[in-house]
Amino acid sequence: MSESFDIKSPEDLKRLSPKELRALAADLRARIIDTVSKNGGHLASSLGVVELTLVLHTVFDTPKDKIVWDVGHQSYAHKLVTGRSHRFHTLRRLGGLSGFPKRAESPYDVYDTGHASGSISYALGLAKARDLRGEDYHVVAVIGDGSLTSGLAFEGLNNAGGLGSRLIVVVNDNSMSISENVGGLSFHLTAIRMAPIYRSAKERLEKVLDRMPSLGPQAVEMLRRLKGGLKHLLFPEAWFESLGFSYYGPIDGHDIEGMQRVLRDAKALKEPVIVHVVTKKGKGYEPAEKDPERYHGPGPFDPATGEIYRKDGPPAWNKVFGEAMCAFAKTNPRLVAITAAMSDGTGLGEFKELFPDRFFDVGIAESHAVTYAAGLAQGGMLPVVAIYSTFLQRSYDQIVQDVSQQRLKVVFAIDRAGLVGDDGETHHGEFDLSYLRTVPGMVVMAPKDEIELVNMLHTAFQIPESCAVRYPRGAAIGADYREALEKPELLETGKAEVLQSGSDVTVMAVGSAVYPALQAAEILSGEGVSCAVVNARFVKPFDRELVARLVKTGPLLVVEENVPAGGLGEAVLSFAAGTGEHREVATLSLPDAFVQHGPQSELRKLSGLDAESIAERVRRLVKEAYDR
Amino acid sequence: MSESFDIKSPEDLKRLSPKELRALAADLRARIIDTVSKNGGHLASSLGVVELTLVLHTVFDTPKDKIVWDVGHQSYAHKLVTGRSHRFHTLRRLGGLSGFPKRAESPYDVYDTGHASGSISYALGLAKARDLRGEDYHVVAVIGDGSLTSGLAFEGLNNAGGLGSRLIVVVNDNSMSISENVGGLSFHLTAIRMAPIYRSAKERLEKVLDRMPSLGPQAVEMLRRLKGGLKHLLFPEAWFESLGFSYYGPIDGHDIEGMQRVLRDAKALKEPVIVHVVTKKGKGYEPAEKDPERYHGPGPFDPATGEIYRKDGPPAWNKVFGEAMCAFAKTNPRLVAITAAMSDGTGLGEFKELFPDRFFDVGIAESHAVTYAAGLAQGGMLPVVAIYSTFLQRSYDQIVQDVSQQRLKVVFAIDRAGLVGDDGETHHGEFDLSYLRTVPGMVVMAPKDEIELVNMLHTAFQIPESCAVRYPRGAAIGADYREALEKPELLETGKAEVLQSGSDVTVMAVGSAVYPALQAAEILSGEGVSCAVVNARFVKPFDRELVARLVKTGPLLVVEENVPAGGLGEAVLSFAAGTGEHREVATLSLPDAFVQHGPQSELRKLSGLDAESIAERVRRLVKEAYDR
Repeated sequence: MSESFDIKSPEDLKRLSPKELRALAADLRARIIDTVSKNGGHLASSLGVVELTLVLHTVFDTPKDKIVWDVGHQSYAHKLVTGRSHRFHTLRRLGGLSGFPKRAESPYDVYDTGHASGSISYALGLAKARDLRGEDYHVVAVIGDGSLTSGLAFEGLNNAGGLGSRLIVVVNDNSMSISENVGGLSFHLTAIRMAPIYRSAKERLEKVLDRMPSLGPQAVEMLRRLKGGLKHLLFPEAWFESLGFSYYGPIDGHDIEGMQRVLRDAKALKEPVIVHVVTKKGKGYEPAEKDPERYHGPGPFDPATGEIYRKDGPPAWNKVFGEAMCAFAKTNPRLVAITAAMSDGTGLGEFKELFPDRFFDVGIAESHAVTYAAGLAQGGMLPVVAIYSTFLQRSYDQIVQDVSQQRLKVVFAIDRAGLVGDDGETHHGEFDLSYLRTVPGMVVMAPKDEIELVNMLHTAFQIPESCAVRYPRGAAIGADYREALEKPELLETGKAEVLQSGSDVTVMAVGSAVYPALQAAEILSGEGVSCAVVNARFVKPFDRELVARLVKTGPLLVVEENVPAGGLGEAVLSFAAGTGEHREVATLSLPDAFVQHGPQSELRKLSGLDAESIAERVRRLVKEAYDR
Repeated sequence: MSESFDIKSPEDLKRLSPKELRALAADLRARIIDTVSKNGGHLASSLGVVELTLVLHTVFDTPKDKIVWDVGHQSYAHKLVTGRSHRFHTLRRLGGLSGFPKRAESPYDVYDTGHASGSISYALGLAKARDLRGEDYHVVAVIGDGSLTSGLAFEGLNNAGGLGSRLIVVVNDNSMSISENVGGLSFHLTAIRMAPIYRSAKERLEKVLDRMPSLGPQAVEMLRRLKGGLKHLLFPEAWFESLGFSYYGPIDGHDIEGMQRVLRDAKALKEPVIVHVVTKKGKGYEPAEKDPERYHGPGPFDPATGEIYRKDGPPAWNKVFGEAMCAFAKTNPRLVAITAAMSDGTGLGEFKELFPDRFFDVGIAESHAVTYAAGLAQGGMLPVVAIYSTFLQRSYDQIVQDVSQQRLKVVFAIDRAGLVGDDGETHHGEFDLSYLRTVPGMVVMAPKDEIELVNMLHTAFQIPESCAVRYPRGAAIGADYREALEKPELLETGKAEVLQSGSDVTVMAVGSAVYPALQAAEILSGEGVSCAVVNARFVKPFDRELVARLVKTGPLLVVEENVPAGGLGEAVLSFAAGTGEHREVATLSLPDAFVQHGPQSELRKLSGLDAESIAERVRRLVKEAYDR
């Protein structure tokens, strides 16, 4: 931890004076900056809540009282003061501390999250269980204002207000989700932040009011003013109170004593309470304060200058996607792009600059994003919904009902499909091939390289069906896609690409598994095994004609970075089974389980999807075929 | 249509005086009551919006202007005045008019919906497309107050307010979702309805305000009052305005001229507008006015008395579920039930009466329902989430992230799985086996009869894994389950039940397909084909040991009422393919498509899942096996 403080548990915090806590906050920040500069991680949000974290652990009696962190990417200070300081250098490393709260890591963690906006619902469940069991503890959800744009948070607030359970929701208002915050609601949260006089004015007003019980006729003028600008200053209070919450705030989220005072008051209430704290994302680290989006989740950087180390090598998949979108949008005025609070993350930063009218960041609102896209399609546009695989799970019903059932044309650009690496369990895109395959009429593709990504997007824009194109997080392959941007190729729907022939066995791989499959074939070639490699390209519809031929003539292994249930492997194997006579078939998929965090390449290896694992599975398959 | 009016299109409405429109409204109600009394349907909500429908079609220039009905179950009057009167008697019948808007049915329908709360998002998409294309038409979403409890509606409102597009949202406030409305928000909508003085008071206030420009010091008292009770009267206005909408209302939703006036005003604005109309669900039909929940979606009834005809025969599946819940809750104090605005629909009416503290209707908020359940589980309770299959699609991410990823124990009781019949495309539960199979650690079951439903629930409450039990809409089988309620049986996880042996071929069926499979076996027996029948019971994990044995010895057909991708059929067949040598295997599933509306039994036949279709598929399979 720090030189000056030895914090083994939150008990140690309770002995510190506010001044000491402030000094500790500085130490914690230094520690966070140091570790994240080496391991990468969620810097800006964690720096913003250092004081809030200390206050929560001094005012509440954790772990008996429960702190439910929304998203969880702001939990680094929490980890440092709850007995994990000695392991903090392992943050996000394979086998090390997770970048998110994990109940298995610590009794101080109560919600293993990673997706935004569930904290209120979850905390309400805890609070209600407590009351039903006659227990007595406090439940505190900590949620950012960005997460409040999500319908899930609204549903939780509305239900909590209706139930009236004892529950504290700390709204951590930093005017950011990850990208700039959006939506009608945020205007008002912004208004309050821009009114520093608000708090003292409110206090003065209340004093006046206490001495003036009679309602004069001029009071109606106040009503009029409220209908105008002044109302906006009162907005957060009225808004949360309208949902059934008491409201405290806004208070300075870096003022330790102020927050302690208010939270102690809030603790005494037996009802749902909002405590609205205003923090600065990136607080205490100048580069992050200046550009919190850039330092939201940086890779390793120079702590002295803030310079994020550039990785050499191929561009990231999302960058290629963004470039392709800009290229296609130039010639297709119907093309519009929709993101859910991830304009930079999805690679659409340049598109946003070039085509501001055709770019929509709807906030953390994945369900809405898809129904909104359906409406745009019905209105004559060609919408591209760019959402990470794991978050698109929130849109499953809208994809089924509003897009597919309506036979509307929407294109889904699905970034971070497969294993994402350091963010771990909650962020891997393990399921998209499966849940998208269930959707009637949906064409599902995955590119092997940059050129194919461009061609798949082009194809998606040309054919009548709704399409999903899924691609991994991180660096692409290094294929030169400039020509593809100029002259993209229309791919034949449902046709695979035979990359190399081979007489002993075939590996049919999709997306991120294609290059490892080629490497596996090379390894096997050195052992005298002649291995054909097929790039599936299309998961739905897949190339039945080719598969029917392949399984007649030799063993076949299907490889995909997706769970087994409902993926390409099951599709191909069950089809093969129905063809009558067929040779040995097998699949390699992700496990039917959640995969830990760590480097992408390590995780692929551990999950058996690297070249050597594929080669080993092929050896076994060939042996089975040969032994029979 | 009616004796007195011949309405071929909304153009004809524009020629009618308000008095004539009122008379027409009465005619339309009579027509709706008459047809629904024969065909069943959504009565109360359709009766509530007859005047609103007429007003919308007189004020707006449909179909150029777009009316986006939320949920769509209130669209009967809309259908009657948009050229479908002559076909209205076919409502919800096979090949007849849908009970929901369908773009394929009429150019006046713009949103094929059935799930609640998407109308604002969709309408916003239309409005934005219009603006981008430089077109000029009005877009009007009509959404019930119940649908506003859904996060999707909130996300739509928030984004619409932020974008500022020209868009009219009519909030049809009838204080009902389907069950009684819930949540903090509804308290305030209720408050306004209970304040009949509000409107005139507001008008008077505004007149006073216009003459009184200076803000006196006493005005602050108004602020104080606003912080108390009066604020609630102003709530809807402030709430919607805080999200970026202008607000008109509340206005009487049965006052034709009043609504025409306000909507004409709203039409002139170039921004997002809320028009808040208050209607009475079931309006004009006394039984429905008195008990709108009972007449929300009744089957055929006597129009004179309102008596809903009782169906003879076995109890409905949901009734058995409800009884079992009551029985188990008596001995298990940890058991709690959660529903999303369907307390009666899910069969939990009695549970709600007996265990009010352990029953939670969270409103139309399926995503929240699951995360809330996860919190309850973490807090020590045993939550049962009862949501229809089609609506549980909205919880996919929460099931994956908050339940499965956290290894928490939640039981999902999934009603209306498979084909639901008259409600059609948007309501069939076609996908649940597939999307639930992707979820790590989830045990997925489907009962063949009432006894098994009871035993599966018992099993779900006993084993450590999260479980899903899915069962159909409508009448169960008729098995006497009283003993099972007393002494439920613990089923071995992943073990199928061999119902009858046979030497030529095996049919492995799950849930609703088991009895048809038995009938098919009987048909085949008469033809000299000896057909074994296996009740799969478990879809995940399925009985691999049994399947491995079966496919070695004879042909196997897997039958399920679910889409093919990722269902039991694919699971079993792909496993069979991997076992090496196996006999002929095949699956019967629902099509990879949306299924129309009509009687459940007819739809099952059309989808090839009735006994005769199963027998026919077995004949073909046996022939293939024999011919080889």
